[in-house]
Amino acid sequence: MEFSSKLLENAVYEMSQLPGIGKRTALRLVLHLLKQPKEQTARLAEALVNLKDNIKFCKNCHNISDVEVCEICSNPRRDESVVCVVEDIRDVMAIENTGQFQGLYHVLGGKISPMEGVGPQDLTIFSLVDKAKQGKINELIFALSSTMEGDTTNFYIYKQLDGLGIKTSTIARGIAVGDELEYADEVTLGRSILNRIPFENSLKV
Amino acid sequence: MEFSSKLLENAVYEMSQLPGIGKRTALRLVLHLLKQPKEQTARLAEALVNLKDNIKFCKNCHNISDVEVCEICSNPRRDESVVCVVEDIRDVMAIENTGQFQGLYHVLGGKISPMEGVGPQDLTIFSLVDKAKQGKINELIFALSSTMEGDTTNFYIYKQLDGLGIKTSTIARGIAVGDELEYADEVTLGRSILNRIPFENSLKV
Repeated sequence: MEFSSKLLENAVYEMSQLPGIGKRTALRLVLHLLKQPKEQTARLAEALVNLKDNIKFCKNCHNISDVEVCEICSNPRRDESVVCVVEDIRDVMAIENTGQFQGLYHVLGGKISPMEGVGPQDLTIFSLVDKAKQGKINELIFALSSTMEGDTTNFYIYKQLDGLGIKTSTIARGIAVGDELEYADEVTLGRSILNRIPFENSLKV
Repeated sequence: MEFSSKLLENAVYEMSQLPGIGKRTALRLVLHLLKQPKEQTARLAEALVNLKDNIKFCKNCHNISDVEVCEICSNPRRDESVVCVVEDIRDVMAIENTGQFQGLYHVLGGKISPMEGVGPQDLTIFSLVDKAKQGKINELIFALSSTMEGDTTNFYIYKQLDGLGIKTSTIARGIAVGDELEYADEVTLGRSILNRIPFENSLKV
């Protein structure tokens, strides 16, 4: 791609560094901004720099927060003895949306992935183990995605908790509510049969 | 979507103002920036603000440029009597890539669209007509997309040039080189038969 303007080329290049944004999409986005009032670009630039400069992570759960201890961790109504281990803030938002969980979270910030050079020390695992050793946690719920990396991370944490007498569980895998069996993948369907639950339990929610 | 941080919410909101970027994608992009070194965000923000503040449009063709008269318009080898009318810089880049056009461009900045409230006065049409009236143009090539808006814009300009004795043409519509006839749409195939060209001409390129 040859540009008639260095300024334009530079803006497109920086925009195309974002994941999933190719050169063409970047050009489309930048040309859109050019057509909009100057304030829109200024606001976008400021919001991004502001976020990066002032962002805080909750001391307790490591979720993104504007204060030292996030709203969830500082809520006295929540059960701090039950901790749900998730990858990032999107998972927290998804689980919060269900309204079914009253415990706290622990945000790892990723998954162990030797392929991408992410080890336990790059995540907040040690802080989780510390909390566990202080006897604050009764139950730990693993809610990482069920990939090789997710399973590895779960197992690593599980091993670290050995002998602490903490109950561990993982979220149920199964057929989504409303889905047709014939379109489900075999692994999920197989697990949902092996891990079947008493019928009465299914009437609760 | 409920956010645990106003800073994050704000950044996601501004990002989601870009075309084709929904809230979820915006969140993904912003979280990606959070994981990258601070410099990347700073560079992106600076490039966008810089572009918006310092961008120039060529006085002659209205294309985006870093200087008063763009490289194409100031190139003495190009034939200034042939002008290709396009919508925006992307079309200029696409035609330049072919290496088949040695004239100049005129960038309209959009198409006439009553539905979106874009009239002739919002585009650079008057400047084009001025150039034509000064007798600088022998041939005008319309290269707008063949939509209702494109056709309207072409026709509006065509009418404005009435009596100036300027030759007008539009780029050929037809089956793309390498395409199978059976997959072509009827309108395109129909036009390509009506506007068939002497066989010898097809041997040139």
